[in-house]
Amino acid sequence: MVEKKHIMKAWAAVFLVISIVIGIAMIPQLNKYGKEGVMTDTENEFMYEKSIHILAMLLMGFGFLMVFIRKYGYTSITATYLVVALSLPLYMLVRPYLWGSVANISITNISMLLFAEFAAASLLIAIGGPLGRVNTSQYLLIGLLFTPLYAVNEWFLFSGAVIPIGAFLDTAGSVMIHAFGAYFALGMIIMLTTKKESELSVETSKGSNEFALLGSAALWIFWPSFCSALVSVDKIPLVAINTVLALCGATLATYAFTILIRGKIEVGDIANASLAGGVAIGATVANVTPGWSMLIGLIAGTISVVGYAIIQPRLQKATGGVDTCGVHNLHGMPGVFGGLVALGLVASPLWQLTGIIISVIFAITMGIVVGFIASRLGRKTTPYDDKEEFELSE
Amino acid sequence: MVEKKHIMKAWAAVFLVISIVIGIAMIPQLNKYGKEGVMTDTENEFMYEKSIHILAMLLMGFGFLMVFIRKYGYTSITATYLVVALSLPLYMLVRPYLWGSVANISITNISMLLFAEFAAASLLIAIGGPLGRVNTSQYLLIGLLFTPLYAVNEWFLFSGAVIPIGAFLDTAGSVMIHAFGAYFALGMIIMLTTKKESELSVETSKGSNEFALLGSAALWIFWPSFCSALVSVDKIPLVAINTVLALCGATLATYAFTILIRGKIEVGDIANASLAGGVAIGATVANVTPGWSMLIGLIAGTISVVGYAIIQPRLQKATGGVDTCGVHNLHGMPGVFGGLVALGLVASPLWQLTGIIISVIFAITMGIVVGFIASRLGRKTTPYDDKEEFELSE
Amino acid sequence: MVEKKHIMKAWAAVFLVISIVIGIAMIPQLNKYGKEGVMTDTENEFMYEKSIHILAMLLMGFGFLMVFIRKYGYTSITATYLVVALSLPLYMLVRPYLWGSVANISITNISMLLFAEFAAASLLIAIGGPLGRVNTSQYLLIGLLFTPLYAVNEWFLFSGAVIPIGAFLDTAGSVMIHAFGAYFALGMIIMLTTKKESELSVETSKGSNEFALLGSAALWIFWPSFCSALVSVDKIPLVAINTVLALCGATLATYAFTILIRGKIEVGDIANASLAGGVAIGATVANVTPGWSMLIGLIAGTISVVGYAIIQPRLQKATGGVDTCGVHNLHGMPGVFGGLVALGLVASPLWQLTGIIISVIFAITMGIVVGFIASRLGRKTTPYDDKEEFELSE
Repeated sequence: MVEKKHIMKAWAAVFLVISIVIGIAMIPQLNKYGKEGVMTDTENEFMYEKSIHILAMLLMGFGFLMVFIRKYGYTSITATYLVVALSLPLYMLVRPYLWGSVANISITNISMLLFAEFAAASLLIAIGGPLGRVNTSQYLLIGLLFTPLYAVNEWFLFSGAVIPIGAFLDTAGSVMIHAFGAYFALGMIIMLTTKKESELSVETSKGSNEFALLGSAALWIFWPSFCSALVSVDKIPLVAINTVLALCGATLATYAFTILIRGKIEVGDIANASLAGGVAIGATVANVTPGWSMLIGLIAGTISVVGYAIIQPRLQKATGGVDTCGVHNLHGMPGVFGGLVALGLVASPLWQLTGIIISVIFAITMGIVVGFIASRLGRKTTPYDDKEEFELSE
Repeated sequence: MVEKKHIMKAWAAVFLVISIVIGIAMIPQLNKYGKEGVMTDTENEFMYEKSIHILAMLLMGFGFLMVFIRKYGYTSITATYLVVALSLPLYMLVRPYLWGSVANISITNISMLLFAEFAAASLLIAIGGPLGRVNTSQYLLIGLLFTPLYAVNEWFLFSGAVIPIGAFLDTAGSVMIHAFGAYFALGMIIMLTTKKESELSVETSKGSNEFALLGSAALWIFWPSFCSALVSVDKIPLVAINTVLALCGATLATYAFTILIRGKIEVGDIANASLAGGVAIGATVANVTPGWSMLIGLIAGTISVVGYAIIQPRLQKATGGVDTCGVHNLHGMPGVFGGLVALGLVASPLWQLTGIIISVIFAITMGIVVGFIASRLGRKTTPYDDKEEFELSE
Repeated sequence: MVEKKHIMKAWAAVFLVISIVIGIAMIPQLNKYGKEGVMTDTENEFMYEKSIHILAMLLMGFGFLMVFIRKYGYTSITATYLVVALSLPLYMLVRPYLWGSVANISITNISMLLFAEFAAASLLIAIGGPLGRVNTSQYLLIGLLFTPLYAVNEWFLFSGAVIPIGAFLDTAGSVMIHAFGAYFALGMIIMLTTKKESELSVETSKGSNEFALLGSAALWIFWPSFCSALVSVDKIPLVAINTVLALCGATLATYAFTILIRGKIEVGDIANASLAGGVAIGATVANVTPGWSMLIGLIAGTISVVGYAIIQPRLQKATGGVDTCGVHNLHGMPGVFGGLVALGLVASPLWQLTGIIISVIFAITMGIVVGFIASRLGRKTTPYDDKEEFELSE
């Protein structure tokens, strides 16, 4: 135990130094507003509000959705705080170097904050896979490696580096944010599940599930702001209504299929699969109409419940890898489905398909690499339990 | 039990089909923006933000306020999700047929979302009455019937169909939303309380009450957006300040009267009656001044605590009907009081009174009818308990 | 106990009368919009949204952050509701008399609501010091006395009465709001801690700490709106990004130092010290760049954890006074630090220093006076426990 504490302290010191370095490295980065000339006060205002709403999704939404593990609430929230606090500045630091003069968005442009929040969202999805089986320093390490890799994939898809600008339709990141995070998680899971852990059941409780429902509600509520964060002002009403209807559809489908498949209502399905509509509508949210949005949501909710109730248990049995939050069911399959829906709406379905394939393959591969690195750096003795790292009062 | 599961599955399938039908029926409804020509970016922005705030009131506010029942938290949240997910698209589908060319608000206008959210709020109030004594499929059935009936009452009051346009003052729905939902609940309660249930006490716990306080806080916080959702931009500061002061007044009155009547503080009074100021100020919020708003709030809080502490126990003893959330105390009496305050501010008090009377009578009558229909479709064996329909972990 | 109830009822009646008097006194105060001529719709919209966000910080943020005491959750939330409901109207009533014609902001100007919310925030910080050791009526009494004193200090700093207008840099109240509230708390603590209480440990639990983390998340999320509430529209993106980065810095420093000092993670450090970046950046948030903001946050988080882990236990041992929420660590020292950072950015460091010294000395002195008055009016028999004043269900 004494040795363990020394390792904890060493890692804490390492990440303190990294944080200071990021802060200092940002200082010379300040240049004049990239898009200030073309952004109106109304655009700034819309984007500002959305940046706050997405912060609520990150800390209250994803954070508390992950509190469902009975004895692991402190770590879930702390890990959320940590990876958000690391990935936001890190993304802001990295992006300008990647994009260069292609998109001159400076560090003090509000859309820079939105892009960084998207990166943090994708990272939170990714850690949902191995959640409960790694230490807090490993969450930080994953965040440190994931953030630039996410930025690279974003650059593949949207900077014109690989896919022509405008050829890939993914307005609110069904593929870029959700599927990327989920398949990155699957990659990490391969390296971050022991045999013992794959036989363990993840315990929940009434209290922990009610906090998860609160996190779910926060995500549902602010999802229209996630989807409309970067669309033009005149499209915002349509996008907001489409997002709400997709969530309505997924919620209703979740209710129907949790009962039809399980014979009872599984509260975890309600908390998670109800959100699949928001994931799937992301790609095409500015290009479809309200009725279709509801139908897309209904299909996404169905896919997600089938994932939680049927696919996940079999996959876990077959591969031995544990996807703690079921991110493949909520973000992986519905995200890819959302990207595929866009096939019917884009000029070149081939580029759309290319974008999806690049994202999934790059995510899985890099997830395996990052999972391998993280697995070399210690092992949690008691999975799904706060007690190793936290002072507990009870 | 096997039979029970078959019935659950049959209802799940029915509502799945209904959801798909709603989605499909919406597709041809898309026409061009109804008011787009006259809505500025700033109006759109204000309304967009308020639509998100009201979503927070629906899912986090009403949802968690109803978690106060100790063993019924999962159902409370799930029912909230379900009736919101059903009533939003249903209202959007129905309204254009009712109003025709009178108000050409298309399905992609952001104010359509706000009107639909008001319908969902009124429905959540309505299910607060029989809460805990019906199954999840019955909440959906109630939502299916309530939503068009609510739309009809709204059409009575504001379309010119019954009351001349502009003659009924109810800016933020003291009568149309709150009183209508509450008296609809009272109607349903008559049909949806068994003798056994009226003798049962509804158990709470520290944890369940703290979640209820969280729901209450969410309602308090976003209430100014509820009240100002549809007022003109120049009136928004006044409306916001009036709403806050009405809530302050109600909160202070609640504290005073919970102690003066009970000798101790009842945490349920704090969570509920503190909000009565928001209910009562709704009708006149754009027409009174801050000092008066605080006084209206003080009176509303007083009415509400008197309702919870004195009127409700007697009413329950006399009639045998159980109003689980006490919606009559929070939304019924303060809502009617709010509508009556407007008598001194309108051109024709007679039309104002007519609007209130129509709403209350129509609500009670339709509540009885809907309650009767719902009561024919099954009976909850263990009231105020999740275990019949949910997989429980503990 | 009978006598105790009579006293509770007497106090309840007193505050009811005070509330009515405040409402009536506000009626003649309505004059035309003070700044309406110069406020654009966009400014109004920005300020409106921020007024809602800060309400969320007050009720959900500060309120639930104080729920960490295991048996005291009902009182923490109720006290939050009460002091907010009292201080908002009281500040609005008092301010115009103090400022006179200097700043003609009428009671229906949205910036009046923002100023009042700042007062409520400072008051919530102040009651965090003696939290758990006074009765609900004493929280109200403290609020009644604190609010005008806060308004006086604000007037000292910004009206030109003492310090020349513009000479004191404190954009988002590092000194005026945070340090003032915290040092006022320290003053009260001297009078409001008994010997018995200083030997008692404040019990927490898993559930109470998770609610505290929720409160902490609400504060983190909406802090950019706190900091940018009163800056000009063109500065808002910079201020938002600076605030987020300061919070990121503090969160990362908190993690590092909670482990480096304690050898384990203390969840109370995460919930509190992570916010110290928001406190410290307040003074200079519109005048520094993103990289520097992150570094200021890193230092503030460090100061705060050192406060919680090292300074507070020693101070408590030495003086016998208990700072329940550790407001000195979160708001006191980081607030003064934030004010001192501005020394390098202002025209006259002497005026900046004068402002800090006035605020701290006035706060401590008045805190002692108010603490003395409150201590004369009863004594809580069982500290950190709801049972004296609340009907408990368990």
